[in-house]
Amino acid sequence: MANHGSARALAAEAVGSFFLFVTVVGSGIMAETLSGGNVAIALLGNTLATGAILFVLIAMLAPISGAHFNPAVTLVMWLRKELSARSALLFVAVQLAGGILGVLAAHFMFDQPLWQLSEKTRTGQGQWLAELIATFGLLFTILGCIRHRPDWVAPAVGLYISAGYWFTSSTSFANPAITIARSLSDSFAGIAPEDVAGFVIAQFAGAILAWWLGKWLFAKDETAVH
Amino acid sequence: MANHGSARALAAEAVGSFFLFVTVVGSGIMAETLSGGNVAIALLGNTLATGAILFVLIAMLAPISGAHFNPAVTLVMWLRKELSARSALLFVAVQLAGGILGVLAAHFMFDQPLWQLSEKTRTGQGQWLAELIATFGLLFTILGCIRHRPDWVAPAVGLYISAGYWFTSSTSFANPAITIARSLSDSFAGIAPEDVAGFVIAQFAGAILAWWLGKWLFAKDETAVH
Amino acid sequence: MANHGSARALAAEAVGSFFLFVTVVGSGIMAETLSGGNVAIALLGNTLATGAILFVLIAMLAPISGAHFNPAVTLVMWLRKELSARSALLFVAVQLAGGILGVLAAHFMFDQPLWQLSEKTRTGQGQWLAELIATFGLLFTILGCIRHRPDWVAPAVGLYISAGYWFTSSTSFANPAITIARSLSDSFAGIAPEDVAGFVIAQFAGAILAWWLGKWLFAKDETAVH
Amino acid sequence: MANHGSARALAAEAVGSFFLFVTVVGSGIMAETLSGGNVAIALLGNTLATGAILFVLIAMLAPISGAHFNPAVTLVMWLRKELSARSALLFVAVQLAGGILGVLAAHFMFDQPLWQLSEKTRTGQGQWLAELIATFGLLFTILGCIRHRPDWVAPAVGLYISAGYWFTSSTSFANPAITIARSLSDSFAGIAPEDVAGFVIAQFAGAILAWWLGKWLFAKDETAVH
Repeated sequence: MANHGSARALAAEAVGSFFLFVTVVGSGIMAETLSGGNVAIALLGNTLATGAILFVLIAMLAPISGAHFNPAVTLVMWLRKELSARSALLFVAVQLAGGILGVLAAHFMFDQPLWQLSEKTRTGQGQWLAELIATFGLLFTILGCIRHRPDWVAPAVGLYISAGYWFTSSTSFANPAITIARSLSDSFAGIAPEDVAGFVIAQFAGAILAWWLGKWLFAKDETAVH
Repeated sequence: MANHGSARALAAEAVGSFFLFVTVVGSGIMAETLSGGNVAIALLGNTLATGAILFVLIAMLAPISGAHFNPAVTLVMWLRKELSARSALLFVAVQLAGGILGVLAAHFMFDQPLWQLSEKTRTGQGQWLAELIATFGLLFTILGCIRHRPDWVAPAVGLYISAGYWFTSSTSFANPAITIARSLSDSFAGIAPEDVAGFVIAQFAGAILAWWLGKWLFAKDETAVH
Repeated sequence: MANHGSARALAAEAVGSFFLFVTVVGSGIMAETLSGGNVAIALLGNTLATGAILFVLIAMLAPISGAHFNPAVTLVMWLRKELSARSALLFVAVQLAGGILGVLAAHFMFDQPLWQLSEKTRTGQGQWLAELIATFGLLFTILGCIRHRPDWVAPAVGLYISAGYWFTSSTSFANPAITIARSLSDSFAGIAPEDVAGFVIAQFAGAILAWWLGKWLFAKDETAVH
Repeated sequence: MANHGSARALAAEAVGSFFLFVTVVGSGIMAETLSGGNVAIALLGNTLATGAILFVLIAMLAPISGAHFNPAVTLVMWLRKELSARSALLFVAVQLAGGILGVLAAHFMFDQPLWQLSEKTRTGQGQWLAELIATFGLLFTILGCIRHRPDWVAPAVGLYISAGYWFTSSTSFANPAITIARSLSDSFAGIAPEDVAGFVIAQFAGAILAWWLGKWLFAKDETAVH
């Protein structure tokens, strides 16, 4: 099992967050540049890249750190007592550090200014509900697979986010660290800094709701409570 | 194995139907909005999201309820005596309730009126045959995988419906509950209320046909009857 | 193991060929109709549907008949002495019968004339080499997976044909029965009847070449001959 | 395990490189021809074909040669002492020979001049960093999966490159042999001969970096060093 306190676990979270965030932002830039204004085609490329890299990163890094790359996941794992408060805070710190480095790398690769602020408005009740549902579903997927199909967390998370990019009006950020990092990119995947707080609150609410429902639905003593 | 009478099974059917239906309708709205009128691109996004979420939902919920989310599947499982008539009726009720809630959630997320009626005509012999073939193939896939590759029901159903969205003229609703729920959305995935009955009859006919052929082709005593 | 002489094996080949061919032709009609003249988008839909249905059909029917759906595959399995000449001829007969019925069903679903003849020219040295390489690769994939990853024949064949639709100038028919059946559809997937013979000859040549190379490369006594 | 010195291993590398390179170049020509100038759609087709064929080739050939098809992978496996210097040089020779034959076959299939030189400029700090990150990630994926999920090298590499086509500004060549071979095709996938050296240096640098980090992060004595 993953030892969440180790230097290796922190390195895995940092490298994984780097690749996840560089993919979200980089494929967004690539897709928007090439798609000639057809946003659906751009979103197809962005979706394909994000879903694919999630499979890869979780498959190889989950045995080291659990492959969170996401403070909402880390919060729920802390609620489940799978890592200490200290490890959880360190996880969030390296997720943000690795992830922001990923955004900078995407900007460098595509010859853009390194530091940017997004001007893309993403707000309103519809999008807040979208982030709540998106993050609920992400955690629900993780908790359900851990319980019933632990080998399939990687494909399930990759495919869940692929679906989420399309079925939610917010395109399923579903990750407080990536929400902050995406505010630093004025590109396809961006979000204006003033809209970050609303998304993050909805994401944590969805995660906690999934933890609460999952405690009952995915409990080990299933056969005893019918 | 799934205990179909439990509160957990009903909850799994409700949550799964919610996510399946919110995905079908939500990704349809997203795809149509972004695609600039190119319906093939819209259908690609709709297909990707639907196939992906089916994999996820079946992977994590099949051990709890069987992951039907579909009255045609529940009917065949009742014909196979895998659940009682009472459980089957409760399944259909929560599939409809959870699914319609999913449609409402999609409308709320995309800032649309909650209650709508579709005006999209879907009728005629060609589309009825399409629904019969689509639902036959869906049940045939489920029964064949249960018999020969039980671990692969989730990817097989996700990929079967992905193919069905393209090879049938009706885009493979293949689910009476989703047909009813989609009549409540005047969007890409909608169907006019007066066309629902024709689709539902063809779906149940296809499901029963698959059960009848599958009883022979996927029988356990295979080696005895050559 | 599959009992190739049984009625069940023939039924599996017939039903599988029906669904494979209805998917190739039906998704071609759907894709061409919706894509507004952008052939790359049409080919994406056609590819997605064909690759997906191949996974599904092979996963559930391979234990019954071997899931050939293709006279070039049946020929190689006969060369490998896995079925008798009589079974092989019956296989080809039901592949053609089931497959042509699939083409007719596609036409009926999309409200087209049942019987058609394609006018799409597909000929020349480039396309013949394409079919030879495509069918070589298909058989090579099957033989390699049977030897090293028997559980993965279904995803490998689905993904191989998905790649083949794009990397060959002929879009990888790679199947003599489907070549004949596609001559009966004047749609996206069609081929003019006078061009069928060239494709079929190239396909059988590629299949035999793969069998010949595979006999050495995928031999069981591998460790003895370095 | 693979015997890297055998004639079979060299044949596997040659055939695998042939199919990988014919797919990269052939699907690029197909995609560019059909896409009507929308480069994002062309890249979707190119991505789908490349990711799919990687899964297929690695699944069936890894047990014979390790399925490198890439001098950067062969270098790292030599650093890990998994094959001799002599075998490594022979691997690179057949990768180049098989791969260039694949490029010629693609040109023949699409009725193009066999020998071409690309005029597509691919240079600059952004693209060099892109190739370094792309090849780092490819080797990191391979080393991580070998350590933690050896059965999943094939899907992970296929999906990693699918993501890389979109998240890097260079579209992730990540392979010195394919970089040389693509300079011989004046098509979608091409690279001008004078730009090859910069890409190849960045690729080897990324590969060595992944080997160095992977030695620590994916070490077998993981539990001892927390």
